[in-house]
Amino acid sequence: MVDLKGKDILRADQFTRDEVELIIKTAQKFEDSLNKGRMLDNCRGLILATLFFEPSTRTRLSFETAMLRLGGQVITVADPQSSSVSKGESLHDTIKTVENYADVIVLRHPKIGAAAEAAAATERPVINAGDGAGQHPTQSLLDVYTILKEKGTIDGLTIACVGDLKYGRTVHSLAELLSLYKVRLIFVSPISLRMPAELINKLKEKGVPTEETEDLKEALKKSDVLYMTRIQKERFEDQTEYERLKGVYILTRSVLKDAKKEIIIMHPLPRVNEIATDVDSYEGAAYFRQVANGVPVRMALLALVTGRI
Amino acid sequence: MVDLKGKDILRADQFTRDEVELIIKTAQKFEDSLNKGRMLDNCRGLILATLFFEPSTRTRLSFETAMLRLGGQVITVADPQSSSVSKGESLHDTIKTVENYADVIVLRHPKIGAAAEAAAATERPVINAGDGAGQHPTQSLLDVYTILKEKGTIDGLTIACVGDLKYGRTVHSLAELLSLYKVRLIFVSPISLRMPAELINKLKEKGVPTEETEDLKEALKKSDVLYMTRIQKERFEDQTEYERLKGVYILTRSVLKDAKKEIIIMHPLPRVNEIATDVDSYEGAAYFRQVANGVPVRMALLALVTGRI
Amino acid sequence: MVDLKGKDILRADQFTRDEVELIIKTAQKFEDSLNKGRMLDNCRGLILATLFFEPSTRTRLSFETAMLRLGGQVITVADPQSSSVSKGESLHDTIKTVENYADVIVLRHPKIGAAAEAAAATERPVINAGDGAGQHPTQSLLDVYTILKEKGTIDGLTIACVGDLKYGRTVHSLAELLSLYKVRLIFVSPISLRMPAELINKLKEKGVPTEETEDLKEALKKSDVLYMTRIQKERFEDQTEYERLKGVYILTRSVLKDAKKEIIIMHPLPRVNEIATDVDSYEGAAYFRQVANGVPVRMALLALVTGRI
Repeated sequence: MVDLKGKDILRADQFTRDEVELIIKTAQKFEDSLNKGRMLDNCRGLILATLFFEPSTRTRLSFETAMLRLGGQVITVADPQSSSVSKGESLHDTIKTVENYADVIVLRHPKIGAAAEAAAATERPVINAGDGAGQHPTQSLLDVYTILKEKGTIDGLTIACVGDLKYGRTVHSLAELLSLYKVRLIFVSPISLRMPAELINKLKEKGVPTEETEDLKEALKKSDVLYMTRIQKERFEDQTEYERLKGVYILTRSVLKDAKKEIIIMHPLPRVNEIATDVDSYEGAAYFRQVANGVPVRMALLALVTGRI
Repeated sequence: MVDLKGKDILRADQFTRDEVELIIKTAQKFEDSLNKGRMLDNCRGLILATLFFEPSTRTRLSFETAMLRLGGQVITVADPQSSSVSKGESLHDTIKTVENYADVIVLRHPKIGAAAEAAAATERPVINAGDGAGQHPTQSLLDVYTILKEKGTIDGLTIACVGDLKYGRTVHSLAELLSLYKVRLIFVSPISLRMPAELINKLKEKGVPTEETEDLKEALKKSDVLYMTRIQKERFEDQTEYERLKGVYILTRSVLKDAKKEIIIMHPLPRVNEIATDVDSYEGAAYFRQVANGVPVRMALLALVTGRI
Repeated sequence: MVDLKGKDILRADQFTRDEVELIIKTAQKFEDSLNKGRMLDNCRGLILATLFFEPSTRTRLSFETAMLRLGGQVITVADPQSSSVSKGESLHDTIKTVENYADVIVLRHPKIGAAAEAAAATERPVINAGDGAGQHPTQSLLDVYTILKEKGTIDGLTIACVGDLKYGRTVHSLAELLSLYKVRLIFVSPISLRMPAELINKLKEKGVPTEETEDLKEALKKSDVLYMTRIQKERFEDQTEYERLKGVYILTRSVLKDAKKEIIIMHPLPRVNEIATDVDSYEGAAYFRQVANGVPVRMALLALVTGRI
């Protein structure tokens, strides 16, 4: 039987499909309870430590809310400047300290591999809330949860990922997680910001049909899900290429005219200007519903790794 | 019947006298419970988000205490540098995110109108904890609550407001709220820092007798309440005027010799040097009792807007 | 009978041996409950304010965990920049404000004597979590608790304190607290960083046998407890002295060859490089167990000063 008790959540590619389905089923149950205004106490008596060594509102508050909604409590380091890290302490020692205070640890850190390093230092479950350009697995889980809620299925869908696919950790993690399903992936980006070749190969080996294009309009016609991310001017080596493309990768109502009728729009947030605010009232605009889904998904993870469900 | 359920608290001039009286009555009940050491659970299962995009100890901790004393829980952003605001997210999007985590939102923001903007973005009740040079309505409510507790009534009193009346948001909000009562207002300030003419006119239209003067001693003789605020050297265009006035607007025991016997001294805090510490032991020195009143008043607001009373 | 209800915890030398034993006995009881997974509610309905005007992870989170494990709640200022201190408010006024929110106050402050100043401003119990180069009494209490747990006794032990003994507040406070017991103290430091003469005299007056040396190896042969602290290059007036000594005061497995077989190694943490990581797996390496002991000891203090035990 699938069981996540005591497990670390470090990477999107660590999961079997059974594990993802357990997380989703658990999240659905919690969401149902929240909607009915039921109070839960799965994590009563437990303490979550949120250690955020990089700025974040969304992910930190989402985990804290998840723990509080489960009846647990929270201690937090929201600012690395106010912590012992500023005295030169190693991550290993920080974790060996915090494991004495908290029953589960959520870590955001600027360094790739930091979450794995933290997990190696402690028996307590560690949840990776983003390790630099590395992984952000809980974002991918809530993305998959959102697709399922919005479309009723994941198998059979065509999902387009748009933007900076070279550096975007959310898109990498999402693609890995979607490879557990029967999906078709379209990667829409400028040539210079294409999906890393190793990841494309990994997906192909797993039998995931993929397509790469610069053409957002073409992708819109075929996609059931549009996953937008930001591309930044400073990422382009060639500024004339940026000038050519910048308008194309900004989603507006008028760009959406080419889209499949039932398409849903997702975005990990924060957005800056890559989705115009006139899209917010579009029926398929799912990004604020997506952020809401973070709470039940993180409740599921916290309850599962602490063995409280 | 008066009901604040689901309402935003944005401005001091939004209230009817009935609403103010409901808040006061509710605060009195909560204060009584606190004094008897009774534990309350009006807000059990609810989460308050305190979003402070400007420094504050007093107001943030006061709201957090209020929520905890009601049996609720708190998530907090105490430092804008550690949040997604530093990534360029709009206030609208931040609020559309946080509404998924919290049942009620308290916002302090440097920009005038920010609280109204936040309230427009969400169905959740938003409480303005200060929007730049704009409004600070919960301060005015606790000020009125304090006057009532100290003097037994508000109708019939003469209340002097002293200091920088041009830029001081607490005094503006307080004057608006007091205009619901039968009071006489004396505004004591240097000529260059007088109360804005529009506000004086607004008060006159409502039939509030007002008086403007530079002379604190004269005001002390007639006033039942002295509401001190800070005036800063840098506010003066004419430094010789500052030299002439600076001593007069610093309250000491000896200045108080001219005061009415039963006068009470208020201040929104923090003070720097505008009230000498030898005044702290004066019987009418009410400013630390005033800060204490912030808790029951904010408990009342939280319980009322969440419909938990 | 010994009773700490309503008392402030300001200095290591404020305690009688009976009081220390009460704290230890209470901590043992709480540790036992924690180990059995029992939920406690001694501090239910109470609020702790942690005011940290200097960076800290360990001490702040340890106190917050202690309060939460007792069923209480926490409000916190983790960053002086986000508080009214940045507006020039006096510590007295900050405390007169916070006493209206919290039932007990834990303060870390850069200024010697700040905790005593805070305690003078309020009837609420104030616990000193470090006042600059002054005192850190709760660290010393958990140090004594650790020695007792590791060695089964304190009377009769020889305890070596190593490093910067001139400026190190933890060592000063620990020595004062140990003077209540029948111990022998060895102070190991460079000449220029010796224990202050007044403190040595104070210990002698109390009949504590002390010894001062530069020689760590010699001390290791005689000691039951090795209390390491950091010495910093910049503390040395004479850099050639630093070059001569730097290797000697870094603890490695090979340095430990000279140690008594049953020696335990302690450190207040954070360490930088003064204990090599190869020592972590040494049986007597007690520093991470020491940090764990902070929770029951601080639970004991919180429950005792609030009169909840």
